Amino acid sequence: MQNWKDYDLGRLDVDGFIIDLDGTVYRGNTVIPGAAETIRVLRAAGKRVVFLSNRGNISRRMCREKLSGMGVEVSEEEILLTSTVAARFLRTLGDEEGGKVWVLGEQGLIDELQLAGVALAEKPKDAAWLLITLHEQLTYRDLNLAFQAVRHGARIIATNADRMFPGDGGDCIDVAGMIGAIVHTTGREVEVVVGKPSARMAQAALEVLELPPDRCLVIGDSLESDIRLGAAAGMRTALVLTGSVNREMARMSQVQPDFIWESICDVNDMLFIHQEEKGTGS
Amino acid sequence: MQNWKDYDLGRLDVDGFIIDLDGTVYRGNTVIPGAAETIRVLRAAGKRVVFLSNRGNISRRMCREKLSGMGVEVSEEEILLTSTVAARFLRTLGDEEGGKVWVLGEQGLIDELQLAGVALAEKPKDAAWLLITLHEQLTYRDLNLAFQAVRHGARIIATNADRMFPGDGGDCIDVAGMIGAIVHTTGREVEVVVGKPSARMAQAALEVLELPPDRCLVIGDSLESDIRLGAAAGMRTALVLTGSVNREMARMSQVQPDFIWESICDVNDMLFIHQEEKGTGS
Repeated sequence: MQNWKDYDLGRLDVDGFIIDLDGTVYRGNTVIPGAAETIRVLRAAGKRVVFLSNRGNISRRMCREKLSGMGVEVSEEEILLTSTVAARFLRTLGDEEGGKVWVLGEQGLIDELQLAGVALAEKPKDAAWLLITLHEQLTYRDLNLAFQAVRHGARIIATNADRMFPGDGGDCIDVAGMIGAIVHTTGREVEVVVGKPSARMAQAALEVLELPPDRCLVIGDSLESDIRLGAAAGMRTALVLTGSVNREMARMSQVQPDFIWESICDVNDMLFIHQEEKGTGS
Repeated sequence: MQNWKDYDLGRLDVDGFIIDLDGTVYRGNTVIPGAAETIRVLRAAGKRVVFLSNRGNISRRMCREKLSGMGVEVSEEEILLTSTVAARFLRTLGDEEGGKVWVLGEQGLIDELQLAGVALAEKPKDAAWLLITLHEQLTYRDLNLAFQAVRHGARIIATNADRMFPGDGGDCIDVAGMIGAIVHTTGREVEVVVGKPSARMAQAALEVLELPPDRCLVIGDSLESDIRLGAAAGMRTALVLTGSVNREMARMSQVQPDFIWESICDVNDMLFIHQEEKGTGS
């Protein structure tokens, strides 16, 4: 980690911003102070943005509406959820690997699958794939049907493998709980994990931005998903302290960001300093 | 395995019968034909019986009522469920290891814990132990509260670790699903598994029968839980084919029973032959 004041400012000369949502733009149902304004300023400066979330239980429409309610205006094309990327992955499988999908997850994921044209299995035994995501309305019946799908031969794909997510009342059990229930009882492993820090997710973001990795900066609150994704893909990375990680945890981590910021709002300071250096500042 | 006709009949000279329930006395909600009559005959011959089940989500009262509805009359003292044995175990922990218990399970288990005088935690963070059992009314909220308990330091005990149980519509996901969700997200392991084939369960059965192991026969449908429990404890064992195992599976198994019977009813044939040999038959 380097403090931005000591940093070669030329290296923040980027065109695209890959911005995490939960813990970076909002926390639970509360927007991070200044985040909406910061994103407006980025756009006004001609920067491209894409929002990346490991959430697989919502659709882009639901996410856009949530952001809009917080004063953050984005288009659905600028949102990449693991539900979106999982749906695209399953759609692109050829006849040999493809087939109908059983979902252990919520309506938001089913919406994304249907938008992408993925065929859903009507019964667990007809599924070629079991797609697992966070399921906050999970019941025993849901778990048992997913178990049946794998017992009948379905392969396992997960939107992400996060163990917990920050909820309004503290950390909550995440997709790894649903995964654990199925792999522990079937003896089968998850074959594909779509979410950050996977290269699949980084590639999807670069396709939206239409930029090479060295023109992009990842901003996120998770060392293990956001910073690791950016570092592996050859992007620059900024860790924000508005989510699950504090300075001490960052210091101890094997994965190191290029910057550590109090919040997403710090990006604007750097942006303008850089633009002033280049003589393009407002 | 030996066919009983070739077997030294003297070796079936036993006084106590440890009888599995699910797959041996009933299957789902249907009694195994002849089981009720067989148990009456055993009693009439002066034999002691105890019924053993890995079910931890019901109380002995619930179990006795279910059996009574099928024409099988037993007292609650003759029933040993993993809920019963888990409750006794937690009750006997000293101050150092004891403490309040959070339950990921159903009312039947809570009833057994309260009968045994085990203190239940009011909040997950107050729990010294998380007790996991099958939870057929499981919701995401239940999983999340159990997750909170372990995150706050609760140690994990499970009534059993079965991966599936035979339901009316086929095999269903069992306790291992609930266990998998918690251990996969917390990184903590289960410290105590109460159920068959544990020595704890065998010992509890011998205490009810007040007999040494070599005077007892285990009758059950599971090689991994019933037959393994009996073999490890020095009891004789009979596998019945009315549950989850067929002859081919039995032949391939590392664990071998002393007898393989079509159903529990076969015990009476052996009993009377033996009694006739001894001159005590009716």
